[in-house]
Amino acid sequence: MARYKIVVEYDGTTLVGWQKQEIGDSAQGFLEQALFGFTHQKNNIFAAGRTDAGVHALGQVAHFDVETKMDLYHMCEAFNAHLRDMKAPVSVLTIEEVCPDFHARFSAVKRAYLYRILNRRARSVLLENRVWHVNYKLDVEKMRQAAIHLLGHHDFSAFRGAGCQALSPLKTLDKLDIVQQGEEIHFIVEAKSFLYHQVRNMVGTLKMVGDGHLKPEDIVAILESRKREEAGVTAPASGLYLSKIEY
Amino acid sequence: MARYKIVVEYDGTTLVGWQKQEIGDSAQGFLEQALFGFTHQKNNIFAAGRTDAGVHALGQVAHFDVETKMDLYHMCEAFNAHLRDMKAPVSVLTIEEVCPDFHARFSAVKRAYLYRILNRRARSVLLENRVWHVNYKLDVEKMRQAAIHLLGHHDFSAFRGAGCQALSPLKTLDKLDIVQQGEEIHFIVEAKSFLYHQVRNMVGTLKMVGDGHLKPEDIVAILESRKREEAGVTAPASGLYLSKIEY
Repeated sequence: MARYKIVVEYDGTTLVGWQKQEIGDSAQGFLEQALFGFTHQKNNIFAAGRTDAGVHALGQVAHFDVETKMDLYHMCEAFNAHLRDMKAPVSVLTIEEVCPDFHARFSAVKRAYLYRILNRRARSVLLENRVWHVNYKLDVEKMRQAAIHLLGHHDFSAFRGAGCQALSPLKTLDKLDIVQQGEEIHFIVEAKSFLYHQVRNMVGTLKMVGDGHLKPEDIVAILESRKREEAGVTAPASGLYLSKIEY
Repeated sequence: MARYKIVVEYDGTTLVGWQKQEIGDSAQGFLEQALFGFTHQKNNIFAAGRTDAGVHALGQVAHFDVETKMDLYHMCEAFNAHLRDMKAPVSVLTIEEVCPDFHARFSAVKRAYLYRILNRRARSVLLENRVWHVNYKLDVEKMRQAAIHLLGHHDFSAFRGAGCQALSPLKTLDKLDIVQQGEEIHFIVEAKSFLYHQVRNMVGTLKMVGDGHLKPEDIVAILESRKREEAGVTAPASGLYLSKIEY
């Protein structure tokens, strides 16, 4: 028996999300099918975090066990050959052997997300399903002032999506950088873990600061209210990327 | 009668190129159809440069005439509404009125292209049809040394595609910067004008320097040979972007 850790990229546009479901394509489903294709063993693959329909991954991490050790290079090639044959929007970037007590989800110490807003008048055909297109000017500096209030240890109930299964709404936000990149605005967000929809709800609320519907200091009252209805909209899935998991 | 200049973005993946052809979708065809949709006039749209099938544009420029002046904002909105209805992979970024003697092709003083190589082992599902995927390590420094020999005024016959209609193979290359951007290598290329396939043939040849098939100084002999067969492969269309036209 050997345990392997894989880093995975996927285009979430046509996926129901990371997790296998009754109907629809999932990253997990494609990867398990690919794994079965070259090991002929039915094995579960466990991810660091589930992503929703439409959300992308630049560096999702997952683990699985196989009965006998395999060569890493050939395993990676076999994964990608099977994924390509299935026309899966999923690619295995790297693969390494890990200790049997490694767990993609429970061993993770930090999760990083990237959220991309395209902030220009005209829609982009080259970035379709890759960004949230906001076609009026956002004030990046105001969004940065607002973001400061979200850093650190808080009760994030106001940014918690319905159906969240976390035991506690208390989380520690380590980073929320907002960077102008040409016509795009990038939100770089890091924490040990997040509530369901927390990143998208924070970005949706910050965007309302950027467009003047909220003032930067309004974030304080929103956080303290602990009420979801006080915060802003949920930013669309298409702009969100699970970018990195640290162990 | 008024003349307008538009800046256009397109995803070339499913297009036969800029120019209308007997069969297949073209950027020109979609734009002329959109223009007809709101002016009910059949007008030709002329571009700064024709792009091939699969080549993208971040900032193609084109011009056309309409019988009566129109509001710029509403014209841009009308273009994009019609393009969206046609599910065209084309977007009009800006529109301005220009003098009747402005010509998108003949008035241009500089054309800029971007070429993107993704240089990593695994293919990218998020950048499919957006880059040339080279899955072994390229030496960027060697490619830079080679690129220097291409700068300036030369007979570029060795990099001239078959079917090129330019009167002379003499061109002046103003810029060929090679920049590492994470896992991507970007080639930023500028000249007043280019021979047919010149950018893709230069990138294809530089890539052969990057992978060790050629030495940087081999570029000198290739240029001097003026023979297409001495230079390297034509880089795939998917990595090429017409990025900017200056007037």
